[in-house]
Amino acid sequence: MPDPIAPEGWSCPLALSNYPTIVMGHGTGAKLSSDLIEHLFVPAFRNPILEAMGDSSVLDLPTGRLAFTTDGHVVRPLFFPGGSIGELAVNGTVNDLAMAGARPLYLSAAFILEEGFPIDQLSQIVTLMAEAAKRAGVKIVAGDTKVVERGHGDGCYITTAGIGIVPAGRSVGPDQAQPGDAVIVSGTIGDHGMAVMSVREGLEFETQLTSDTAPLHELVERLFAAVPNVRALRDPTRGGVAATLNEFASRSKVGVLIEETALPLRPEVQGACELLGLDPLMVANEGKLIAVVPAECVDAALTRLRSHPLGERAARIGTIVADHPGMVVMQTSIGGKRVVTLPIGEQLPRIC
Amino acid sequence: MPDPIAPEGWSCPLALSNYPTIVMGHGTGAKLSSDLIEHLFVPAFRNPILEAMGDSSVLDLPTGRLAFTTDGHVVRPLFFPGGSIGELAVNGTVNDLAMAGARPLYLSAAFILEEGFPIDQLSQIVTLMAEAAKRAGVKIVAGDTKVVERGHGDGCYITTAGIGIVPAGRSVGPDQAQPGDAVIVSGTIGDHGMAVMSVREGLEFETQLTSDTAPLHELVERLFAAVPNVRALRDPTRGGVAATLNEFASRSKVGVLIEETALPLRPEVQGACELLGLDPLMVANEGKLIAVVPAECVDAALTRLRSHPLGERAARIGTIVADHPGMVVMQTSIGGKRVVTLPIGEQLPRIC
Repeated sequence: MPDPIAPEGWSCPLALSNYPTIVMGHGTGAKLSSDLIEHLFVPAFRNPILEAMGDSSVLDLPTGRLAFTTDGHVVRPLFFPGGSIGELAVNGTVNDLAMAGARPLYLSAAFILEEGFPIDQLSQIVTLMAEAAKRAGVKIVAGDTKVVERGHGDGCYITTAGIGIVPAGRSVGPDQAQPGDAVIVSGTIGDHGMAVMSVREGLEFETQLTSDTAPLHELVERLFAAVPNVRALRDPTRGGVAATLNEFASRSKVGVLIEETALPLRPEVQGACELLGLDPLMVANEGKLIAVVPAECVDAALTRLRSHPLGERAARIGTIVADHPGMVVMQTSIGGKRVVTLPIGEQLPRIC
Repeated sequence: MPDPIAPEGWSCPLALSNYPTIVMGHGTGAKLSSDLIEHLFVPAFRNPILEAMGDSSVLDLPTGRLAFTTDGHVVRPLFFPGGSIGELAVNGTVNDLAMAGARPLYLSAAFILEEGFPIDQLSQIVTLMAEAAKRAGVKIVAGDTKVVERGHGDGCYITTAGIGIVPAGRSVGPDQAQPGDAVIVSGTIGDHGMAVMSVREGLEFETQLTSDTAPLHELVERLFAAVPNVRALRDPTRGGVAATLNEFASRSKVGVLIEETALPLRPEVQGACELLGLDPLMVANEGKLIAVVPAECVDAALTRLRSHPLGERAARIGTIVADHPGMVVMQTSIGGKRVVTLPIGEQLPRIC
């Protein structure tokens, strides 16, 4: 005898009951595409702008300069401790907007799905995206879905784009750092990259490594409240802190001097890095920012950042210097100095 | 002896000579990613906003309501008669903006590349995108690149997002059609879908089928100049004219009555459709629009549309009716009537 129907166990948005997995027809703009939109995406991302279902969403914006950004997400595996591709796709784009000093407002989401991908996994991802969007205070107002044949994708790729408004007076850029400025990081480094790698490599530690994926717009607002003239802001995602600092050094034509002992680093992340032969400076973060601020503002900045749960472990990690322009140098814990290079090749593929 | 270096044969943007194909490191946000950005994307899409290389692009916009849209592109093959994924990625998003009555301004482009994809093909695609953007009068101001392992992609997927400004007074939507209105198509239908299918199936015809991919923003401006109160506008891409008209019928709660003999259709497209058993109403277009306009404006609309090269074969194909709400009916050439349904399954996968 089949199980009786038990609607109390159902969750919303409903999975599309007739097709447990993605079929090519879900990508053709016809009936099955409409089902996916009506029964999955619109209920999850519900807002009047998306529901108008035009070719474009039409938005009334507060006045100001507009920030616009995009990010593709191909992380493997799709679910990992502390998050999924869904949170990354929302938070990654929210953070890119925040790093321009913008208040994030609207996102688009374009899915490239592989034939055979389970609808219930898609439904989970979409639900997590909707929750992340709510937490970040943004609306998902435009979308698209394409389906590719089995063997031409990896379940689910998501590209988001985002727009936000930059309040008057804010002007940050990787080319604005000046000798004497302080370099701040908002918390522990390497958490996201090592959380993903630990699942992928099947590593087990006493404490589980967890991704730090989070929306940073509130932290950025606090930072600007304390330091209106923040010079440079960036979230050190792919390529990690090393890539971000090298970009600041090269674009601002300054040197960056950091201190190894000042870097906030969880012991379990350090352990995992040692085990895998990875440099935590090159490991991706998804909920941290690096800020360059005038030296006299560093205490105010740290106090404000630490007053937010995402900035509790904010720390000054270094200084912008006139020496060795274009180069990042680290004072190591054993008293030496080493050059922190831009990672050349491949350290952690498909980390976001 | 190796060939002498012959710089006169070089083209700009330069291929990245050290790596003839995409390697995983091109997607890691580190040195190789920078090379791709500096030597390929930025030279091709050159503009000061992109060159600022922040996490977001910051834009000054004319006042007005903002249109925002996104589209993923997974067309197979990447190059086909009349175009490539590059033109589709630009024109598709430009057209989605234009269909909201917006003037397209800025695009983002996110690439998901497969390990092993030839850099010279990427370079060709990027060059074609840059040319298409120039022709459409838009700037590509934000981008992203991810690389996936061999066997997890199909060379190159491109997701674009776009923003544009909707001039005051324009309000179009798929829910605005009213009984008595006229339905117009801007030219021959089915050209894009059959051009792609003919390459994919290896068909040969006396006349080569060519994609109609084109930016429709100028045509839309002419239409609004003639008919300020256009009711509904859409480019019939995936799902073709059938999907667009069904959406109008369902969203506006009206019937749509079209005449088969009024449909502009190239004989070679008709022939290819018959050969492959496809209904031209369900075949994708990439450079056509369907407009619903008040009946008294239909002559003015057609005159203006036909004055533009992309609208030369514009024609009235039908009428919005109060009968059979939610349903599209076609008066056939042999005198009968048939219901034009929304294609349910899979007619032409990966057509855009």
